[in-house]
Amino acid sequence: MIKVGVVGATGYAGEEVIKILINHKSVEITELSAVIEIEEPISSIFPAFKGRCDLICRKPRPEAMAKNVDLIFLALPHKISMEIAPAFLNAGKIVVDLSADYRLDPDVYKVWYGIEHKDKGNLTKAVYGLPELYHDEIKKAKLVANPGCYPTSAILGVAPAVKEKLIDDSSVIIDSKSGVTGAGRKPDLALSFSEVNENLKAYKVNEHQPKPEINKILSQVAGTKIDVVFTPHLIPINRGMLSTIYMKLTKNLDTKGAIDIYKKFYKGKPFVRIYDEGKLPQVRDVVLSNYCDIGLKVTGKTLIVIACIDNLKKGAAGQAVQNMNIMSGFSETEGLL
Amino acid sequence: MIKVGVVGATGYAGEEVIKILINHKSVEITELSAVIEIEEPISSIFPAFKGRCDLICRKPRPEAMAKNVDLIFLALPHKISMEIAPAFLNAGKIVVDLSADYRLDPDVYKVWYGIEHKDKGNLTKAVYGLPELYHDEIKKAKLVANPGCYPTSAILGVAPAVKEKLIDDSSVIIDSKSGVTGAGRKPDLALSFSEVNENLKAYKVNEHQPKPEINKILSQVAGTKIDVVFTPHLIPINRGMLSTIYMKLTKNLDTKGAIDIYKKFYKGKPFVRIYDEGKLPQVRDVVLSNYCDIGLKVTGKTLIVIACIDNLKKGAAGQAVQNMNIMSGFSETEGLL
Amino acid sequence: MIKVGVVGATGYAGEEVIKILINHKSVEITELSAVIEIEEPISSIFPAFKGRCDLICRKPRPEAMAKNVDLIFLALPHKISMEIAPAFLNAGKIVVDLSADYRLDPDVYKVWYGIEHKDKGNLTKAVYGLPELYHDEIKKAKLVANPGCYPTSAILGVAPAVKEKLIDDSSVIIDSKSGVTGAGRKPDLALSFSEVNENLKAYKVNEHQPKPEINKILSQVAGTKIDVVFTPHLIPINRGMLSTIYMKLTKNLDTKGAIDIYKKFYKGKPFVRIYDEGKLPQVRDVVLSNYCDIGLKVTGKTLIVIACIDNLKKGAAGQAVQNMNIMSGFSETEGLL
Amino acid sequence: MIKVGVVGATGYAGEEVIKILINHKSVEITELSAVIEIEEPISSIFPAFKGRCDLICRKPRPEAMAKNVDLIFLALPHKISMEIAPAFLNAGKIVVDLSADYRLDPDVYKVWYGIEHKDKGNLTKAVYGLPELYHDEIKKAKLVANPGCYPTSAILGVAPAVKEKLIDDSSVIIDSKSGVTGAGRKPDLALSFSEVNENLKAYKVNEHQPKPEINKILSQVAGTKIDVVFTPHLIPINRGMLSTIYMKLTKNLDTKGAIDIYKKFYKGKPFVRIYDEGKLPQVRDVVLSNYCDIGLKVTGKTLIVIACIDNLKKGAAGQAVQNMNIMSGFSETEGLL
Repeated sequence: MIKVGVVGATGYAGEEVIKILINHKSVEITELSAVIEIEEPISSIFPAFKGRCDLICRKPRPEAMAKNVDLIFLALPHKISMEIAPAFLNAGKIVVDLSADYRLDPDVYKVWYGIEHKDKGNLTKAVYGLPELYHDEIKKAKLVANPGCYPTSAILGVAPAVKEKLIDDSSVIIDSKSGVTGAGRKPDLALSFSEVNENLKAYKVNEHQPKPEINKILSQVAGTKIDVVFTPHLIPINRGMLSTIYMKLTKNLDTKGAIDIYKKFYKGKPFVRIYDEGKLPQVRDVVLSNYCDIGLKVTGKTLIVIACIDNLKKGAAGQAVQNMNIMSGFSETEGLL
Repeated sequence: MIKVGVVGATGYAGEEVIKILINHKSVEITELSAVIEIEEPISSIFPAFKGRCDLICRKPRPEAMAKNVDLIFLALPHKISMEIAPAFLNAGKIVVDLSADYRLDPDVYKVWYGIEHKDKGNLTKAVYGLPELYHDEIKKAKLVANPGCYPTSAILGVAPAVKEKLIDDSSVIIDSKSGVTGAGRKPDLALSFSEVNENLKAYKVNEHQPKPEINKILSQVAGTKIDVVFTPHLIPINRGMLSTIYMKLTKNLDTKGAIDIYKKFYKGKPFVRIYDEGKLPQVRDVVLSNYCDIGLKVTGKTLIVIACIDNLKKGAAGQAVQNMNIMSGFSETEGLL
Repeated sequence: MIKVGVVGATGYAGEEVIKILINHKSVEITELSAVIEIEEPISSIFPAFKGRCDLICRKPRPEAMAKNVDLIFLALPHKISMEIAPAFLNAGKIVVDLSADYRLDPDVYKVWYGIEHKDKGNLTKAVYGLPELYHDEIKKAKLVANPGCYPTSAILGVAPAVKEKLIDDSSVIIDSKSGVTGAGRKPDLALSFSEVNENLKAYKVNEHQPKPEINKILSQVAGTKIDVVFTPHLIPINRGMLSTIYMKLTKNLDTKGAIDIYKKFYKGKPFVRIYDEGKLPQVRDVVLSNYCDIGLKVTGKTLIVIACIDNLKKGAAGQAVQNMNIMSGFSETEGLL
Repeated sequence: MIKVGVVGATGYAGEEVIKILINHKSVEITELSAVIEIEEPISSIFPAFKGRCDLICRKPRPEAMAKNVDLIFLALPHKISMEIAPAFLNAGKIVVDLSADYRLDPDVYKVWYGIEHKDKGNLTKAVYGLPELYHDEIKKAKLVANPGCYPTSAILGVAPAVKEKLIDDSSVIIDSKSGVTGAGRKPDLALSFSEVNENLKAYKVNEHQPKPEINKILSQVAGTKIDVVFTPHLIPINRGMLSTIYMKLTKNLDTKGAIDIYKKFYKGKPFVRIYDEGKLPQVRDVVLSNYCDIGLKVTGKTLIVIACIDNLKKGAAGQAVQNMNIMSGFSETEGLL
């Protein structure tokens, strides 16, 4: 039994971490905080927790919190996490950071986030928390940079193809469709119901911040520089993400052959399900779960991969708990099935 | 051909007024304004207007605008309209105000809106712009207080029953369900997609500001004091409003008899459609139109009335144009069919 | 550990029962059946179950299934359950029936369902499975008639008021709003996305089949004949139900007093949460849970109660498992938190 | 003033044709038919038309209808149109067919629709009704094959690039997202609200019937054989379609240059709007209009085009009326602005 806390408890990712932890048999939630006006039970903010978790959600006080947790989840906006994480790391506590702050090299970070990184020391020690690729590193990490939702679906969908040298590395096109909770919980006209509902749009075409994260990890996997084309779209659903990925095959391969390679690549990984020929994943089948479901189709020289996740589970809170499980020596699936 | 303008052109009601006016053959839009950071064509703000209306939307400048319009639509938040309207009225221009500022007596206004009314002089001259009840007064008015969406559906649903003394005046229960555009176009966490979608809630039960407006007008119609029970609900649809109204009959009446009375009451009114026995209105059938569709059912001593409108048309912009048509001597339905 | 099965495994309620049972530590799912064309793993029909439950879903074969279960959930359409239940009851197995077939007296059943009841013998032995009212009877039952979703929200919302004689028994008005899964999983134009989305309607006003069920149970609770006014509405959400209930008080009572009475009435009931004054339940806070959340407000002589459930959990599958827990001697909340 | 009729008046495309025609000043609707059980006013089937169009919708009787129309819209399922069209053509009447029956060569038709074409004689005379490409041919046609919604967005998005030889013809990838009305108005579990809402899926990847239609027309435009990769997705919105198109540039071109070429290509076309650099179309801005809005972005050697339409307007009924306008000598935009 370990003691855990959540900073940023009132966002969607924070709420989801709490939801999972309530049913996790090896942890006790001891600290919750968020930028709020009055400190009150988390169940007053999210009445769904009434009777399940009535812990007070307090204003941020990292040093004090650090004394009362073994592990902390930082479910904070980008640029804020790197100001908070050191307090926990300095106190010797394990940090799972759900923001982008510890995912990129500092120079790339500066280009895409517009400011100098404020915690370069810890940045070099951070491990990218995608367990299907970095399980052993995560096991030994003190600081995990939990992947973004777009990168999770994109990287899991592309990794076997670049690792097994199936494709032209310069041909990767990722057309991603995301539910709205991916944009966070905040007042924002562009996210208001009447603007999003019955609407559909692409945004920040090939300019969105997940792009360098996808490039970095896929380049590591491929052992060569990968630069993807990445188009995010906003879809009027609360949860779920589906990435349709197009790649040019350099090997002779049919759908069955591609599926076999992907199945082999993800063998033993409890949260990746590769679909048989003729079947395709959809959001309905992964939502509220920690699975990444992947379907494949070869047509001519094009390999089409469809990777589907719940953006708040495998794309955020679920994966964060999966990382905690690995780091803490729990079963990787504890609390996630 | 008259010259018209819209103050508050970037809200949903303002956008809708413009949309109607573009196809209205007797008006020219000469002025648009809103609280914006840069003045740019309205079609840059709402690209739907590209090529249809590319007029510059400017920052508010009431006196200057007043010189360039014959009639102005004020599509502003409550409490702001009463600061803007006088500039147009003083210049002798006609005002259709879509806010609540000219709908209530000053003492009631103070109770429900929390501040002293700032334009009591014009308030006494304002006519309530519900053409089915006040057509002749509207015709002669210089200032029309355009009804709210909740009151429009509620009053049209109840008026024949109280006018014809069918019911116990103390028994009126109005259970209203509203689409989200009714709450306006603004950043607000409570209106964000992820909070509203897949959700359903009642709010401000019997305490919402449309209540005194409903009471005032129904009391005028009844010739006696009416105090309704009114529960608004927020529904995850963009547009549309459906009010389910329960009243205790004091007369012996069946469904057919009630329908006949309603049909007679609204005879010749082009935008009220009374349904035959066994049929009920639904949002799908009024959305994007200026109709108020009404269905009735008598069960025991209870009269159930279902009144259905598009909250942005008959509940706001459509009715505003209907009022303009009446005041300007155009056909009442011009631009609205 | 008991062996359980589900008949009607491919409907929404059947799917939900399976979802709950997968994580229930005291049961083993041994039988699934549905009217299907080919027998295949339930995870081929609902890929969400891939790797979690891959049991073959077979065509209906009650006698054979009865040999392999201790308890059966019948998640079938009305009029079908009463043809299937006897096979299990005759084999001495416990039946939780989610249809309406065992909820009404035979003469009322005939009026509302249009056919003679086919299993009157067992009908007299059936217990109404609303644990908050009939816990002790359920404990001893062999056949539980699991309540409908509308009746669950309506009865839990009204029961304390009639039991404690707070209201005029002839004044109960129930305005219910339901998500679409409540209508079942079947091809039906009226339930198709394009008809339901962005729409809102009342239907079968005071003529829908839950009405006699509500009347029967409330009359039992009140000890006098209750006849409610009941208007169901279809709302474009997948899951969730909110009933807004209006009753005329005969006692002098304020909001706080009403809340106290409701809290006392439901004391010790793990799945009813009564809200404090000024707070109201919403679908977001109960969805995916087995809770019925209730908010109250007194205004003048009117008691307004808002009762909110997930129609597939407390309104169907969750309550069915709750009944199984009680009948099997498990903790009432096992698998449901 | 011409007399027009609609066969298939109860589908979404048929309903939309009627909606447009009601406000079209140069036509009179004289005939409506559909496969229905009882003949009744179209306003009983779609109450929105109450008071606007109360014509009886009759069972299909092509020969009789042909005598009473100058032009007929066939808004029928594929494979049915080719059985109905000859009756009108033989009577010398103009036909606008919204199905796929007259869009493909007979051998391709057989491959993709599974049956021999039944009206090969007229098929050779049919003109593809995409006015931006075939305006002059449409003007002289007696039979127009109105394009599908997917092909309309795809072809308008790709045509300038292949016509102006900007791209590698083998590199065209079309990732399309469609609203649900595109699938027609019929009972179908896969289209039911609870299956589609909060869901997101790709389907028939590179195997959907619009593919050969896209290939045929783009090959004509390019003057060389084009074979696109085409992935349709179903999105939980009623109306709207957005196609994200990826092509490999063979010319040196930046975003501005690509936009200039597209603007020149569509100069004078009233229903195509090319966006300036940095702006992208979204469904909200074209819905309920007949526009196709197109945004472009060049990134490295990739040209990304986003083409956005209302699937029922420019993707079906609006384009059908546009074709009628051209064939009948009306203004091309009559009834469509």
